[in-house]
Amino acid sequence: MSTQTADVIVLGGGSGGLAASFRAAAHGARVVMLEPSALGGTCVNVGCVPKKAMWLAADLAERIALAPALGFAAAAPVPDWAPLLQRRRQYIDGIHASYRKRLQENGIVHLAQRGRLLDARTVECEDGTRVQAPQIVLATGSHALRPAIPGAGLGGVSDDFFALEAAPAQVAIVGGGYIAVELAGVLRALGSAVTLLVRGQRLLGGFDGELAEQLAEAMRRQGIVLQFGSRLQALEAQARGIGLRLQGEEDTAATVADTVLFATGRAPNSDGLGLEAVGVERDDKGAVKVDAYQNTSVAGIAAVGDITAQAMLTPVAIAAARRLMDRLYGGQPDAKLDYDAVPSVVFSHPPLGSVGLSEEQARARFDTVTTYHSRFRPMLQALAGGEGRSLFKMVCAGADERVVGLHLLGEAADEILQGFAVAVKAGVTRRQMEDTVAIHPTSAEEVVLMR
Amino acid sequence: MSTQTADVIVLGGGSGGLAASFRAAAHGARVVMLEPSALGGTCVNVGCVPKKAMWLAADLAERIALAPALGFAAAAPVPDWAPLLQRRRQYIDGIHASYRKRLQENGIVHLAQRGRLLDARTVECEDGTRVQAPQIVLATGSHALRPAIPGAGLGGVSDDFFALEAAPAQVAIVGGGYIAVELAGVLRALGSAVTLLVRGQRLLGGFDGELAEQLAEAMRRQGIVLQFGSRLQALEAQARGIGLRLQGEEDTAATVADTVLFATGRAPNSDGLGLEAVGVERDDKGAVKVDAYQNTSVAGIAAVGDITAQAMLTPVAIAAARRLMDRLYGGQPDAKLDYDAVPSVVFSHPPLGSVGLSEEQARARFDTVTTYHSRFRPMLQALAGGEGRSLFKMVCAGADERVVGLHLLGEAADEILQGFAVAVKAGVTRRQMEDTVAIHPTSAEEVVLMR
Repeated sequence: MSTQTADVIVLGGGSGGLAASFRAAAHGARVVMLEPSALGGTCVNVGCVPKKAMWLAADLAERIALAPALGFAAAAPVPDWAPLLQRRRQYIDGIHASYRKRLQENGIVHLAQRGRLLDARTVECEDGTRVQAPQIVLATGSHALRPAIPGAGLGGVSDDFFALEAAPAQVAIVGGGYIAVELAGVLRALGSAVTLLVRGQRLLGGFDGELAEQLAEAMRRQGIVLQFGSRLQALEAQARGIGLRLQGEEDTAATVADTVLFATGRAPNSDGLGLEAVGVERDDKGAVKVDAYQNTSVAGIAAVGDITAQAMLTPVAIAAARRLMDRLYGGQPDAKLDYDAVPSVVFSHPPLGSVGLSEEQARARFDTVTTYHSRFRPMLQALAGGEGRSLFKMVCAGADERVVGLHLLGEAADEILQGFAVAVKAGVTRRQMEDTVAIHPTSAEEVVLMR
Repeated sequence: MSTQTADVIVLGGGSGGLAASFRAAAHGARVVMLEPSALGGTCVNVGCVPKKAMWLAADLAERIALAPALGFAAAAPVPDWAPLLQRRRQYIDGIHASYRKRLQENGIVHLAQRGRLLDARTVECEDGTRVQAPQIVLATGSHALRPAIPGAGLGGVSDDFFALEAAPAQVAIVGGGYIAVELAGVLRALGSAVTLLVRGQRLLGGFDGELAEQLAEAMRRQGIVLQFGSRLQALEAQARGIGLRLQGEEDTAATVADTVLFATGRAPNSDGLGLEAVGVERDDKGAVKVDAYQNTSVAGIAAVGDITAQAMLTPVAIAAARRLMDRLYGGQPDAKLDYDAVPSVVFSHPPLGSVGLSEEQARARFDTVTTYHSRFRPMLQALAGGEGRSLFKMVCAGADERVVGLHLLGEAADEILQGFAVAVKAGVTRRQMEDTVAIHPTSAEEVVLMR
């Protein structure tokens, strides 16, 4: 049995694991990274990247539908998926190649194996190889959950969306969170009839309620059927397709689809890693517990990204991984990620971006809360007679009206938010927003012109 | 001869004049506004608004050209201008109607007349009516210049671009500033062959040189002919069209076009207003001189916007007008516009946005200057095999690396910049940029990830 040694073993080659490996190597550490599947993990293979590719195609479809009003010859606004998927695969292949090159250039040992902790410094690979290092980083990510209902196997999860080769005629999506909303929008724009079955009474719990409501209206206008208060009891194979039996439908399922996708949550990939034996503590959902410096309960074992269930976002995993390695090998003993005011974007149609506190959260935390709104029609929509509307909302706290939350729904919200996230994190006040000269004509200027 | 009185007379109903009128009325002042032409001035009628409409169509044309690679049926990427122009006019009509409504609702008297100062409190209209007020605001804007060369009358200016009913087959544009660049890009994307004749050796003097160079490359790839070092001597009517005779071409003009547009500068509309008689000082280019509070050399007469030649941008005129009225009637004795770090966007293809100092300006002002770059291919371009590339650049000063300039060339730069402009104006450091979590996958995230 061969044993190799390193300064650090990174379990997982997704966004967080790769970022950890690259940064550690940049600081001169000898790194062994274990990743049995495709490099880049969820984000690159069955998450952000292919999702954005499909969203870009959907966005293009929507623009093509507006084009005749502006004098362009009418064209079918639904693409043939085959060339689109080929391009998507090529793009992802390019990312894989670039990762392989960087791993090699940085002298990082990549073992295409699953690993299991034997003790706090030893990892055993599937083939029996052992690796020892004084530091281990857990970065194995998360996976999509399927609900425990009869017939659940008839449905898929987001991973299965990415395996589709063409738009299914009739899709039912179960869930009301950001993945459900994103899948619904993309599938609708790219050719499917879509029904969204939401357990609660609104979309996007945790995001601002006003924006979620306006997004629901936009989705209905796009032809997506939204069914709130839908408690799924079972999936049933029927002659016409897959029946979705809801609470209250004891005999027949009213909703039948040829494809059912669950977007009902994700869980950390923390089983089978030997964590229990080594003493790494997890919470009741399986997330590895970490302190502010990403340390687990066992000295020499850290964790970053979805396995910790801290804001399951690729850039969070990356940023946490980099700071961890800056702290361990970069001579920055205080480096840690500040999880406050993390911006995020839902790639809905239109996109929805958010940073900081919702109005409800702000009111719970501060005595004085003021809000400002801008409701407008982006110029392309107005020109071409489109139905798109934007709703921007700013939440301020205190007498000096510090901006504690910014919530943007509308065209370009995905690109507008980042700069404002820097400003919000820096603690700007509404006055400072107002004192910045607008850029005309844009959607972004509405943020500084809100009254 | 009737004389009416008011608290303030506003000369001009463009962006600045309207903003001044609305804000003064909001503070309870009685306002008389003189505007003989279309409400909204240059911006709404022959500037930002119709320009952006054409830019949006051009942007759509570029996306439609990329669409077949993603599986969409091929469509002609050049529109019929007639429906486009009809939509553009409808959009502008809507703005006019909204202004008329707001003027009426706010009790602002709009006289559709030219005005001339008789003294520091009296304006005489063309029809002989007089208006008196203790405060006058000059906001008559600027106009495009034509060079003093033989045959100049054969060419048009940007106003004439907005009168075009279809794409000219062959256009020559004279100039290298933002208007020249914008016209060239739009005309090229919407069907014209375009030659740009630039006096100097680069585009966009005053903007960052690296970005200007990359934009020139992008324009060349789009098929625009760029001729630097071109000193136009004369325009000549020829059988084939309009000949553009350059220095060095004494006999024949090598460049012939059916449409020639000058984008060689703008001058303040300060003649014929009676300024000299009243004692309002102007500089040698005719710009009305103002102090930091928009006061002219005569008590009771202020000026905002292009007539002052301070950063000829619509949002600057509006912001200056609002603060002026806040100071005069809103109980804010110190209100004034801070002209520092005014962001602006060139609607080129791709757009170019800039706030703060260029690298050259920063090096002239600070001992320690560091710069960071991000060069990348936006995802839509990469997916669809497009030629578009982005170049983002950050300029920092001092040991703490305060961000003093940010320069963005690429898709969505127009929408990305605004939030960063707030952050830059608030004085953020590079560290604060880096400490803000990225939004993935976007172009905007490249700003906080620059190394």
